[in-house]
Amino acid sequence: MVSLDQNDWVQADIILADADLVLVCVPINKTLETIERLQPFLTEKMILADLTSVKAQPLQKMLQVHQGAVVGFHPMFGPDTPSLAKQVVVCCHGRGAEQYEWLLEQIKIWGAKIEVIDAIEHDHAMTYIQALRHFSTFMFGLHLSEQPIKLEQLLALSSPIYRLELAMIGRLFAQDGALYADIISDKPENLTTIQSLKATFEQSLKFFEEKDKAGFIQVFEKVHHWFGDYSEQFLKESQVLLQQANDYRK
Amino acid sequence: MVSLDQNDWVQADIILADADLVLVCVPINKTLETIERLQPFLTEKMILADLTSVKAQPLQKMLQVHQGAVVGFHPMFGPDTPSLAKQVVVCCHGRGAEQYEWLLEQIKIWGAKIEVIDAIEHDHAMTYIQALRHFSTFMFGLHLSEQPIKLEQLLALSSPIYRLELAMIGRLFAQDGALYADIISDKPENLTTIQSLKATFEQSLKFFEEKDKAGFIQVFEKVHHWFGDYSEQFLKESQVLLQQANDYRK
Repeated sequence: MVSLDQNDWVQADIILADADLVLVCVPINKTLETIERLQPFLTEKMILADLTSVKAQPLQKMLQVHQGAVVGFHPMFGPDTPSLAKQVVVCCHGRGAEQYEWLLEQIKIWGAKIEVIDAIEHDHAMTYIQALRHFSTFMFGLHLSEQPIKLEQLLALSSPIYRLELAMIGRLFAQDGALYADIISDKPENLTTIQSLKATFEQSLKFFEEKDKAGFIQVFEKVHHWFGDYSEQFLKESQVLLQQANDYRK
Repeated sequence: MVSLDQNDWVQADIILADADLVLVCVPINKTLETIERLQPFLTEKMILADLTSVKAQPLQKMLQVHQGAVVGFHPMFGPDTPSLAKQVVVCCHGRGAEQYEWLLEQIKIWGAKIEVIDAIEHDHAMTYIQALRHFSTFMFGLHLSEQPIKLEQLLALSSPIYRLELAMIGRLFAQDGALYADIISDKPENLTTIQSLKATFEQSLKFFEEKDKAGFIQVFEKVHHWFGDYSEQFLKESQVLLQQANDYRK
């Protein structure tokens, strides 16, 4: 395996010669230009693949610049994951699946589960799994930092579930702000979904501004039914985890 | 240990006679009236205590109706917790601490940590630990239930951290809506804090509506500094948990 870093383009022809697989792994906002820049060096026997957290545009661009096999991946875990065991790798088929079959097999051998999905459906789901979540986590952290409270005191008083929630907010801010800005703004659907969350916020707030306890309980029951069996399953699943979270307390 | 249930008031004098400790454990909106109703049966040698998730008002009411020892508790864990080991029990001293010293010792022997705090400070912290958190979880669940998505698909694609977050939303709706309505609305500060979160939501949204990536990153860095060493600590702490969360995947 060889890598072509951003300063290596002058030697791109040497580095890419005879590659079986060209795997694009760059910051999200450099993906499309990087794929384009690869075009002169690609030959039909190469597999062109990427690891970007959005899939529709990169896949379209790869199919456009390359005549050979094309496949898009999105590994659903961070760089700190010690092994691929039980992790999910999203796969959006492009072209020539028989040529990159060995690659999917290899990922499975490493222990990951391959989840095949259409690129547009993938991006739609990521609006919720990434953009909305990161936006909300950012908002909670910003809010907390402006409140008349001491973090130490909140931690001393916190139940396991709240400590975990604080940890999930705080961990965002140990990471790269620019990356999160890019993920949150990568497509127009993200913004409209965040705006719809704001409308739901206002709707939820109204129950308490208007002291409408009955209205709150009615909607609560509706959501309970929407979750179906999952709410009970989640309750059990999270109990185990929360007990473990508590064991890590100092 | 004997209990006085809501249908047992006719025998309250018999049930409460010779009690060393009277421990109030009723729904939050019944607490004050229950304490009042106990007044005729209390003698000075009894300890009067409660387990309500708010502390200022119940403590004040207990001090008012009872001349003997008074103490307020708030156990920071749910009814599904298998043992008190490492759990936090908040203690707000009322009056006559030497008389209930044995009770604090007993709670410690069971393995819990006692966190002593002023009742008003406790209630202020709970605005964040309970009211704001439960409100937000409710809002996310309501929003999700109204979106054009399938929960199964989100779960299939989810990273460990997102699965955990979905679980923390879904588990709320397996519980009692009325209890959450009461916790969210138990004091005016909760409403004003939720309203301030709405203002922060709007401020955060503006970065993306105005495509102000630099502004987002600047605020991101400010919050990073506010979290200080905790953001790194939280990142490490949650990594362990997220790996375990992943191990529970089917």
